[in-house]
Amino acid sequence: MNIYGNSISRLIEELNRLPGVGAKSAARIAFYIMQMDDERVKSLTDAIILAKTTIKHCEICQAITDISPCNICSNSKRDISTIMVVEDSRDMAAYEKTKEYKGLYHVLNGAISPMAGISPENLKIKELLARINGEVNEIILATNPNVEGEATAMYINKLLKDIVNVTRIAYGVPIGGDLEYVDHVTLARALEGRREIL
Amino acid sequence: MNIYGNSISRLIEELNRLPGVGAKSAARIAFYIMQMDDERVKSLTDAIILAKTTIKHCEICQAITDISPCNICSNSKRDISTIMVVEDSRDMAAYEKTKEYKGLYHVLNGAISPMAGISPENLKIKELLARINGEVNEIILATNPNVEGEATAMYINKLLKDIVNVTRIAYGVPIGGDLEYVDHVTLARALEGRREIL
Repeated sequence: MNIYGNSISRLIEELNRLPGVGAKSAARIAFYIMQMDDERVKSLTDAIILAKTTIKHCEICQAITDISPCNICSNSKRDISTIMVVEDSRDMAAYEKTKEYKGLYHVLNGAISPMAGISPENLKIKELLARINGEVNEIILATNPNVEGEATAMYINKLLKDIVNVTRIAYGVPIGGDLEYVDHVTLARALEGRREIL
Repeated sequence: MNIYGNSISRLIEELNRLPGVGAKSAARIAFYIMQMDDERVKSLTDAIILAKTTIKHCEICQAITDISPCNICSNSKRDISTIMVVEDSRDMAAYEKTKEYKGLYHVLNGAISPMAGISPENLKIKELLARINGEVNEIILATNPNVEGEATAMYINKLLKDIVNVTRIAYGVPIGGDLEYVDHVTLARALEGRREIL
């Protein structure tokens, strides 16, 4: 039975299709939207349409952006000798938040996954190759530490190791966590990667 | 620094203002929306606008609906001798999903909360009073089991107990849970409310 009425159910359904929005959150958000004032509703729908119509890939790093080259690629203060390779734009944003990295990025827009039918040709790998010149000293592979991310890192390493230095971000225990809750594979990797305290 | 570009940041901000959508989910949803095809984006924004423009309160039970009287109030198969009083339309939907309740509802659209400045006059209590006639045998108070919900239930009980039977839904341990994780107040209430096994 349709408890809420058609237009409300339809909105809940639409929201429920978004990633990470379950049936309960969808209903909660729908009721919240219906109680927002008209101006805020317009602001929300406009933002959706604007973002959808203005986004593109940065012609250099392939990140999702609304200006190309993106803010990072066009920033003359960045260190052009280092390129960090990430799977998607959100990973780039995550590293930007650390404020520890001053180099450039390259966004693959995915990872190799035979299961999902994603092969190297579907990723922005040839765009990465095209960026490697005498000024680039190091390629840091920061793909996700999962099966797809590892496969992608291995593939790119094979491709580039003879022409440029290639590194992989460290595996280990996350800061602030409790060893008790860390999985055994990570614990083993953290042991294997141990370093002297300087 | 603006990592993503203006239109993307604006969309993330708008989504972040929705209830239960944190900064990370907002970014995830924003990127998902930007990758949806145009038709689905239009379907989403249309659903928001349509729901916002068609919703109203049911003239009888005060639920949020797009037709008044709502589907439940206008359903001749419902038992009109019982009215369940809930705080909001989602609580009504939750009880409807149990398929155990055949009576009518009354939606207060809130709960008494001096902290939030919500007094009985701000709730649909006089609309509830107006519904009580010779045909109504029981008012079931199904407000939330928290401070505001309890205060509201006590207030309505005082108001109605001399003119109609008033009951409160049972307190106890939730089905499928593990006693170890149930808080001590609930455990005490479950003990207090114990019944013989029939």
